[in-house]
Amino acid sequence: MNRIDDTICAVSTAAGVGGIAVIRVSGPDAIEIADRVFRASGVNDMPLVSRKSHTLIYGEVRDETGNIIDEVVVSLFRKPHSYTAEDVVEISCHGSLYIQQQIISLLLRQGCRMADAGEFTRRAFANGKMDLSQAEAVADLIASSSAAAHRLAMNQMRGGFSRELGALREKLLDFASLIELELDFSEEEVEFADREHLTQLASRIENTIEKLIESFDMGNAIKNGIPTAIIGETNAGKSTLLNRLLHEERALVSEIHGTTRDVIEDTINLRGVTFRFIDTAGIRDTQDKIENMGIELTYRKLNQARIVLWVIDTTQPFENLYSLAENILSRSEDKKLILVFNKSDQADDKMKEDKKQFAITIPDAEYLFVSAKENENIDLLENRLISAAQLPKTGTDDVIVTNARHYDALTKAYNAIKRIQEGLRSGLSGDFLSQDIRECMHYLGEITGEISTDDILGNIFSKFCIGK
Amino acid sequence: MNRIDDTICAVSTAAGVGGIAVIRVSGPDAIEIADRVFRASGVNDMPLVSRKSHTLIYGEVRDETGNIIDEVVVSLFRKPHSYTAEDVVEISCHGSLYIQQQIISLLLRQGCRMADAGEFTRRAFANGKMDLSQAEAVADLIASSSAAAHRLAMNQMRGGFSRELGALREKLLDFASLIELELDFSEEEVEFADREHLTQLASRIENTIEKLIESFDMGNAIKNGIPTAIIGETNAGKSTLLNRLLHEERALVSEIHGTTRDVIEDTINLRGVTFRFIDTAGIRDTQDKIENMGIELTYRKLNQARIVLWVIDTTQPFENLYSLAENILSRSEDKKLILVFNKSDQADDKMKEDKKQFAITIPDAEYLFVSAKENENIDLLENRLISAAQLPKTGTDDVIVTNARHYDALTKAYNAIKRIQEGLRSGLSGDFLSQDIRECMHYLGEITGEISTDDILGNIFSKFCIGK
Repeated sequence: MNRIDDTICAVSTAAGVGGIAVIRVSGPDAIEIADRVFRASGVNDMPLVSRKSHTLIYGEVRDETGNIIDEVVVSLFRKPHSYTAEDVVEISCHGSLYIQQQIISLLLRQGCRMADAGEFTRRAFANGKMDLSQAEAVADLIASSSAAAHRLAMNQMRGGFSRELGALREKLLDFASLIELELDFSEEEVEFADREHLTQLASRIENTIEKLIESFDMGNAIKNGIPTAIIGETNAGKSTLLNRLLHEERALVSEIHGTTRDVIEDTINLRGVTFRFIDTAGIRDTQDKIENMGIELTYRKLNQARIVLWVIDTTQPFENLYSLAENILSRSEDKKLILVFNKSDQADDKMKEDKKQFAITIPDAEYLFVSAKENENIDLLENRLISAAQLPKTGTDDVIVTNARHYDALTKAYNAIKRIQEGLRSGLSGDFLSQDIRECMHYLGEITGEISTDDILGNIFSKFCIGK
Repeated sequence: MNRIDDTICAVSTAAGVGGIAVIRVSGPDAIEIADRVFRASGVNDMPLVSRKSHTLIYGEVRDETGNIIDEVVVSLFRKPHSYTAEDVVEISCHGSLYIQQQIISLLLRQGCRMADAGEFTRRAFANGKMDLSQAEAVADLIASSSAAAHRLAMNQMRGGFSRELGALREKLLDFASLIELELDFSEEEVEFADREHLTQLASRIENTIEKLIESFDMGNAIKNGIPTAIIGETNAGKSTLLNRLLHEERALVSEIHGTTRDVIEDTINLRGVTFRFIDTAGIRDTQDKIENMGIELTYRKLNQARIVLWVIDTTQPFENLYSLAENILSRSEDKKLILVFNKSDQADDKMKEDKKQFAITIPDAEYLFVSAKENENIDLLENRLISAAQLPKTGTDDVIVTNARHYDALTKAYNAIKRIQEGLRSGLSGDFLSQDIRECMHYLGEITGEISTDDILGNIFSKFCIGK
């Protein structure tokens, strides 16, 4: 378990060499330790300990023997008006790795401890600056790479999620208090909690949790990208198409059949929407054991996709397509299927007409002709992808679950509320009802961190970057 | 040419995702533009324009439509008390690339221009915050990766170099004024400038410049690493030894003779001293044209080295060594030569004794037995390298030339002072002397930037990172 009575330090800016780097120090001795290594330049060389919060001071960092390590600007934040709610000193130094290392070593020698991943945010949580879902949103915010993911993380960091769950817990608390009041008077067989009223309340709570659980599918797609499978026969040009979409050479492209055996994944951001591509082994009849395993994997990967791009060589006879269609269509029922007729630059009108006739026999599928190699109609394909993504516009106030941990806790809370409803229907006694209500509250509390264990916290914050 | 009447912005921290990132805005409209995108949180939401310099303000950055981009801390520096001597606002935001991009785009839409590489420092120079050699030291400081390189850059940034050159120029100026005074009275044949006195002064200046020029060899070694050649017969284990020293697999190691044809370079830092290794093609009699070119290159590379590691396979007969010795010794006269008998783990006592007898015939050379493969005695070799580096302890006040541009200007100034001395000896007239003195002053002024052109400045600052 992390102590929070010592003083921690870390480089908070990105790893590597930059114009400047920022070293953050937080804890009860932050200012005192900083005063030992830093001296303000100019007429006013008053120590930090005598200075006001929220001021910037220019000066020098020197080691124990008086050697100048760097000229820096120090930011002083006094508790509780800092990120962690502790005394915080931020040292903005020149961005060489050598200087960063030297200042960190010096701070460690002077009594700081190296901060663990996410420890500054963990302290902010421990000191009541934010709840757990807000702390998790900080990591999501830093990792966000699309407008939608950024908006969800920002909303969660600013407490949108906490408000929603807080309201739910409050309702449950009322519920629980009345039931538990009955227990105190259990010999008198009174019912303070109007069961009819409670049933309505449980139903409202059930609906809210259900809506949140359902939002996870979209939240996850926004956060991690919409899973999009690229499938098709060997040599149909799947890798070339993926490369074209990724605008770079990631997959090994070759004229030899069956080149792409590994399933590789990559994401692109098309006008604010993130797609996570699943490139797959080409499908064909083969005796090659490894390749057959690849094909098996391809079909399995199809299950995870929300969008399926079936890539077809326009110049090849379409008879093969019927046997493939069976395998692909049966696995694409709840997905958006787009038939991509590739190599259309090499195809004559007859070939295209054949393919078109094949395409219109497939219900709910879209089709288009492209040439990945010649970059023809790739922009149209991108438009189709964006429409297929069908992400509803998310407003600033939408509460959407993006976190697997929250999803898990909500599912458990949902099961508890279902048991409560069942109990109400079957006239279960108050003490059993109360147990389920407390359980439901427990799981909701796990999300905001009102209920937490060192294991949970350790797991959450270890995924943070160092220095945040 | 860069204008300096507009307002520039850039991310100043290292590229990539970090806990936080810092975006710097500098110029006449910095505060006004920041006020358009930033609003302080809390009771006191006074705009930045009404706030004091050197304060930190917590708040939100919103785009034109009111969407929150991030919660940030803003640092306010009013001119001339900032890095650039202009109004500066630094925005410390969450370190996601998306947020960095969004804030930069917003600032550009609001009237900032994207800063060129080094443009903040260029403005600091243009506004008289530092001279040119100090500005160049900022880039050196950021690039420095060893204690010695850091100390030299820090000394130069703090003006050690400028003081030294300033003193030289002042002396020359006195010199020039007296001579030019003579020219005003040229019809009267007076000599205000005592030629004897001037000769002594020229000699003192010559000595100082000469010392600075000589320091470049060491300064360059400290900054870029001590050039260390690894030479020897094919299959003696040069690549394995280099890899062992680099602690990683850089060179292609193989059992086949003649594998390493390219000359590859790499640096390591041994206890604060940087070595720049020059790995070379193995030497042997060969008809292979390309390989022969490699061997030729090897011998040429030897000229650049300060230390030569001659790697010899201990298990091979030593007769070949004599013919090699001729080529290597003749090119190693002013260098430190270390004979490294490799594969000593596979050698018997007789083989070792033979090698030892060979080694002691070579004057001024050191030798030791190692096994690169088994990592035997590599630590001893490192000790030998450090002793061989023979870098004098550099104190905080030592002025050492590390910059090729300075070296070039000093050399030109040196030639001018030699012409002055020659002129004095041959009784050259004042107007010719004056010309050489002005030329010497010109070159010294180029170093500190009192004399500069857009070309020189463009060349210097383009090597900076963006955001500094």
